[in-house]
Amino acid sequence: MAQSSVTLFGIVDAGVTYAKTSGGDSVYGLTNSGNATSRLGFRGVEDLGGGLKAGFWLEGAIQNDSGTGAGGGAAGPGFEFKRRSTVSLMGNFGEVRLGRELTAAYNTVSAYDVFGQVGIGQHFGFGVNGSPFRVSNMVSYYTPGMSGFKAGINYGFGETAGDSSFGRYIGGSVGYDNGPLSVGLGLEQQNDPSAAFDKEQSLGLGASYNFGVVKLAGLVRQQRNTPVGGGDKWKMNSASLGVTAPVGAAGEVRAAYNYYDVKSVDGKAHQLSLGYVHNLSKRTALYGTYAFLKNQKSETFSVSANGLGIATPAGGKNQNALTVGIRHAF
Amino acid sequence: MAQSSVTLFGIVDAGVTYAKTSGGDSVYGLTNSGNATSRLGFRGVEDLGGGLKAGFWLEGAIQNDSGTGAGGGAAGPGFEFKRRSTVSLMGNFGEVRLGRELTAAYNTVSAYDVFGQVGIGQHFGFGVNGSPFRVSNMVSYYTPGMSGFKAGINYGFGETAGDSSFGRYIGGSVGYDNGPLSVGLGLEQQNDPSAAFDKEQSLGLGASYNFGVVKLAGLVRQQRNTPVGGGDKWKMNSASLGVTAPVGAAGEVRAAYNYYDVKSVDGKAHQLSLGYVHNLSKRTALYGTYAFLKNQKSETFSVSANGLGIATPAGGKNQNALTVGIRHAF
Amino acid sequence: MAQSSVTLFGIVDAGVTYAKTSGGDSVYGLTNSGNATSRLGFRGVEDLGGGLKAGFWLEGAIQNDSGTGAGGGAAGPGFEFKRRSTVSLMGNFGEVRLGRELTAAYNTVSAYDVFGQVGIGQHFGFGVNGSPFRVSNMVSYYTPGMSGFKAGINYGFGETAGDSSFGRYIGGSVGYDNGPLSVGLGLEQQNDPSAAFDKEQSLGLGASYNFGVVKLAGLVRQQRNTPVGGGDKWKMNSASLGVTAPVGAAGEVRAAYNYYDVKSVDGKAHQLSLGYVHNLSKRTALYGTYAFLKNQKSETFSVSANGLGIATPAGGKNQNALTVGIRHAF
Repeated sequence: MAQSSVTLFGIVDAGVTYAKTSGGDSVYGLTNSGNATSRLGFRGVEDLGGGLKAGFWLEGAIQNDSGTGAGGGAAGPGFEFKRRSTVSLMGNFGEVRLGRELTAAYNTVSAYDVFGQVGIGQHFGFGVNGSPFRVSNMVSYYTPGMSGFKAGINYGFGETAGDSSFGRYIGGSVGYDNGPLSVGLGLEQQNDPSAAFDKEQSLGLGASYNFGVVKLAGLVRQQRNTPVGGGDKWKMNSASLGVTAPVGAAGEVRAAYNYYDVKSVDGKAHQLSLGYVHNLSKRTALYGTYAFLKNQKSETFSVSANGLGIATPAGGKNQNALTVGIRHAF
Repeated sequence: MAQSSVTLFGIVDAGVTYAKTSGGDSVYGLTNSGNATSRLGFRGVEDLGGGLKAGFWLEGAIQNDSGTGAGGGAAGPGFEFKRRSTVSLMGNFGEVRLGRELTAAYNTVSAYDVFGQVGIGQHFGFGVNGSPFRVSNMVSYYTPGMSGFKAGINYGFGETAGDSSFGRYIGGSVGYDNGPLSVGLGLEQQNDPSAAFDKEQSLGLGASYNFGVVKLAGLVRQQRNTPVGGGDKWKMNSASLGVTAPVGAAGEVRAAYNYYDVKSVDGKAHQLSLGYVHNLSKRTALYGTYAFLKNQKSETFSVSANGLGIATPAGGKNQNALTVGIRHAF
Repeated sequence: MAQSSVTLFGIVDAGVTYAKTSGGDSVYGLTNSGNATSRLGFRGVEDLGGGLKAGFWLEGAIQNDSGTGAGGGAAGPGFEFKRRSTVSLMGNFGEVRLGRELTAAYNTVSAYDVFGQVGIGQHFGFGVNGSPFRVSNMVSYYTPGMSGFKAGINYGFGETAGDSSFGRYIGGSVGYDNGPLSVGLGLEQQNDPSAAFDKEQSLGLGASYNFGVVKLAGLVRQQRNTPVGGGDKWKMNSASLGVTAPVGAAGEVRAAYNYYDVKSVDGKAHQLSLGYVHNLSKRTALYGTYAFLKNQKSETFSVSANGLGIATPAGGKNQNALTVGIRHAF
């Protein structure tokens, strides 16, 4: 009755990146995770019988340019399971998960970034000003698939003595995946994301349609932060419109336009991303990505590459960046 | 001749804990290791022929609420093999081990805590004021089982130039395990455990008897610390009396009374722990634990839960705590 | 077509070390990596078809006396893949690797140290004053074996904005391995290795000949550092001459004489190393190593053992050190 499996898995993705900021210096370097985030993980599922299953998932990021461990996005002081560390109970009712992982709100909407939230070409509108990618101390519930519909909800304890709402995260998503059409909506509220803000709230919507020859994908997102002590909310609108298309038996081209508008800053930012992935196998690919970022007026958005310091441009300055690399999964 | 095996193993245990200190704040949160310590490890044994075997054991703790690594009990800066990192030579003579691990003195006596030295229900008399759970830089010897008798001795180098006794740990245990009866005795001396003490010494005794319907277990322990510069020794007596009983095919109830008496503090502490474990399989269980801690007069003992800050009560104040969780081993 | 393998591998090596510095204190302790560096790693190769292969290699050091992780040589804050973290593409053309690893210059020449660059008996002339063992952010190319000839080249990005030469590493090696004869040459230039130096350059040559009854091995190396602001170069010459011989079916004796001469210091250092390795299997061995280090005049070279602080001797003072241990590979 108790069948089980434990899987060791991971990705090592490395590339060479060049970045140039208008009016600034250029920089070259070896970068990580240009096509998929470098990681090492251990996961398993146990069949408990009667349709019930238990599972665990431990996964940490790796900065393979230097060999250091890295937490969820930020560099960590040693290998840690900060990408995901959960234990689950699964059944016909869906899945209950305890631990740290990507939020459903982020995960569901960011899935419509055709650059997969990695490298210089990705949409940079997530994770800004206290909106989390991942949350610790969460109790989560995910529905089973129901004719293509699915939903998830995350509750993250603030763990503050005497004030259970301080630092609390609540978010969720609903999605529909059926045939060529996919739609997802995510919303969240993070209390006390920083000393400056009482509250961070975001709402995102994404969709894709696979025409076969090309697949179209897009997302829009709005984030509002409530300042401590009142006053105008900090607001950001961002959007991404992308397309992917197979080229021959092993290739895929990608292109995306990304838009960022922080209301308190004069000017918007526009990003154009172009990419090509050449699959050597299901697990291994060569890739190239080019990104152009245009800041208007006072805006100072920046591309970023894992493992290389790319200076944030001065207000209104542009950036060009190029990565060529290899991704190997195991 | 050289048969061998390498095993990847671990536990992910997560729960929701509520704790309330009299006259203080309550706190809620996601906690780890309520039923068994969350961990990841690698171990193996090689058959060298002629009855000789070599083995290794690398095991580190995981704080799965946040994904960080954690050393032996305390939070670490990244995943480390601080639970155990040893290499062994085994044969008819027993086992010689080099490295870091639980001491025999702690391991043998703490085995009679029916809450398994984890979670809010555990006996908190170990690991206080310089008495170690684990020691680094050890050379250890464990006898083979001899008609139920077994013994172990640990020598931990102080590694201090010019003074080989400074920081040195010496401890050992003897035990007897046969049929329903189990008895264990452990004693230790840790030199220079802190700036305040020249020496820490402890003696513990535990026993259990399995009546079938219920199993009774208990332990008593005394610790004496010699202050630097002389004066009265710091002394603590502690004890635990517990019972476990199977409930149906898959359940087990646990109850324990724990007693703590620090001689230099006016007043004692009493702890009552109640628990239920429901096994979904050999590897997976749901559990609930309730603990009530009563401090008398000036005493300030506290329950603790891995991954949640529970404030130490003011003198004489009580605590109530409850954890409900899931443990999954792989 | 896509055959693949993922291998979990490692070594746990522990011993007891005694060291005594003339005119100073003696120290005892449990040490790591006396015969081979303790480590844990994950590696794999995927056959891509058409003679092409992809591979990854993630490997970190372990300080098993205390369970901490350790980077390339130095203690790290948690387990990290600092020994090697690379992704490779391999074919008839050789191998292209991206990431962090040992440099070809170091690896090729140090291979002729009969004590394998571990423990108190090793040649200590490498890794001094900014000459790296390992380099991050590298693009490397290794030739296939060609009638015993092989070569490698490493380019390590400095990753400095506006100055692509700052911090850059360039090095390479050529080698010949055929029958009893093996020869290797390595050279390197590390820009800006420290605040004191603009440049570090080294050239090393090693060779060995296997006579069957004994194997003779030796190396010579010169390093030159260019000071910031000009002035005389810092120079070091070092050499090693060693011999290994099988003893019976399972044993091997080793002996080496090492020589160190830092030009700016009055006096040279001489080191005599003796060792015996008794193989219990291919993976497991008992070993003993003795080292005597003689500093002349003002020279202050020192033996070192992983996991034990051995004081650097005062000028002209000698050291004696002894390690007895066990190495177990998996």
